[in-house]
Amino acid sequence: MKIAWIGTGVMGKPMALHLAHAGYEVSCYNRTIEKAKALEPQVKVFDNIKSLVKDADIVFSIVGYPKDVLDTYQEVMKYAKKGAILVDMTTSSPTLAKNLAVQAEELGFIMLDAPVTGGDIGAINATLSIMVGGNEQAFHTIKPLLEKMGKTITYMGKAGNGQHAKLANQTAIAGAISGVAEALFYAKTKGLNQTDMLKVITGGSASSWQAQNNGPKMIDGDYKPGFYIKHFLKDLNLVLEEKEDLPLIVVEKVARIYQLLVDQEMQDLGTQAIIEYYLKQNV
Amino acid sequence: MKIAWIGTGVMGKPMALHLAHAGYEVSCYNRTIEKAKALEPQVKVFDNIKSLVKDADIVFSIVGYPKDVLDTYQEVMKYAKKGAILVDMTTSSPTLAKNLAVQAEELGFIMLDAPVTGGDIGAINATLSIMVGGNEQAFHTIKPLLEKMGKTITYMGKAGNGQHAKLANQTAIAGAISGVAEALFYAKTKGLNQTDMLKVITGGSASSWQAQNNGPKMIDGDYKPGFYIKHFLKDLNLVLEEKEDLPLIVVEKVARIYQLLVDQEMQDLGTQAIIEYYLKQNV
Repeated sequence: MKIAWIGTGVMGKPMALHLAHAGYEVSCYNRTIEKAKALEPQVKVFDNIKSLVKDADIVFSIVGYPKDVLDTYQEVMKYAKKGAILVDMTTSSPTLAKNLAVQAEELGFIMLDAPVTGGDIGAINATLSIMVGGNEQAFHTIKPLLEKMGKTITYMGKAGNGQHAKLANQTAIAGAISGVAEALFYAKTKGLNQTDMLKVITGGSASSWQAQNNGPKMIDGDYKPGFYIKHFLKDLNLVLEEKEDLPLIVVEKVARIYQLLVDQEMQDLGTQAIIEYYLKQNV
Repeated sequence: MKIAWIGTGVMGKPMALHLAHAGYEVSCYNRTIEKAKALEPQVKVFDNIKSLVKDADIVFSIVGYPKDVLDTYQEVMKYAKKGAILVDMTTSSPTLAKNLAVQAEELGFIMLDAPVTGGDIGAINATLSIMVGGNEQAFHTIKPLLEKMGKTITYMGKAGNGQHAKLANQTAIAGAISGVAEALFYAKTKGLNQTDMLKVITGGSASSWQAQNNGPKMIDGDYKPGFYIKHFLKDLNLVLEEKEDLPLIVVEKVARIYQLLVDQEMQDLGTQAIIEYYLKQNV
């Protein structure tokens, strides 16, 4: 089984290598070709999508933004082998995922959307959570491959549903991380010891992964990115694009906060820097 | 050491009994006196605050609203023994707590604020988290008693800080529970299986106590109260009272949602019924 892999960034690189290490024949392409070259000789590298995909049975991609996904697959679908399974693992637009799946079917391919959570650590340790939308039979075909990259593989239903699941997941994060930030900010302005405060929060029903992992960083002003603000804002904006008339009022507020942080050049900080929004209010 | 206990409701009853079982001499008063009588003969019962507090070394209270706290302590401070330590464990106003501590000092008492988290289960199992504000020496005096009721006892600083800590804790909950509700609501409207979705959420960085414990209840429409909406709204309104110019925009939104639910007579449902706000939008 020949595998083509597009996008060998922070996430894509370890994911592609897991497949290669599992014995699959993996070929890679990356827009900045040097990043792909760094994976040789464990994978073969092509400097164009046409050569990469023409013999591939399965094409994986994990790129940047929905625009990149669209551009990538317009080219992939020109040159891929009929019957190939195309799997986009970028966090991207559910509507785009649905449209691409329709286009793929018309052209004789099957396209799945399979975004992930778990970050670079999850990618490196192959402990990602992968949410898959699209043709169920194709899902079962590629499931053994996904199991090389992730620990929790969940089939979410029709095309686009993988993306919807990822966006719902980010929605839950938006609430949790803003709640922790507001709590620590409130505590600080009232003169409480923030470390004691965080111990209280993480000790009971107010606890969350965000409180446990990003709470200490908020207190220390450690904004080294685990997850970039620019990427989280991209995700939240995708939620807002899909929300139609849904009253997702917390997500809306949190997206606005992150937009303000990006406006202040904080896009390359970690999401925990949301606390800066509060601290900068000069109250 | 003679202990007076005011308020033998769902929380106060097991808390007072823990002290009695530990060998302390506990006397109780409750506005609805039958509830206190139910604790005999493990505690002594008085039908008025005057008789209850006149010989007490320590007075504990856990009543309903700030107004009840104020009324209770106006009477307690008329009749209590000079030097008595007064400990209000109600979730109440930090400003009121500070004012009562000042008044207490003027009258020869020491007053602490010591609200709790952990709910009725925590009260019954003596696993509460207790946050204490006020005189530090008095805190150390009563700490052995608090340890009979709770597992995590945290000194938060000056009078009012126990209440501030509790409100910060509720702030974190507001973010987490609204995030879970918006995520599950989004998933539902997009046709995803909510149970699969919740598994994804609780499997990674979107996870929270609220997702784990209230998520399944939101999906099932099980609104049996673990924590009443009316009490959570009381807490969030206390945060808003204390917020001054602080931009606590998520808490503000969540308080508004719970107010709308109370306006629709849902005050006696559990906080997980926040999902009803979303489901009722007829989108």
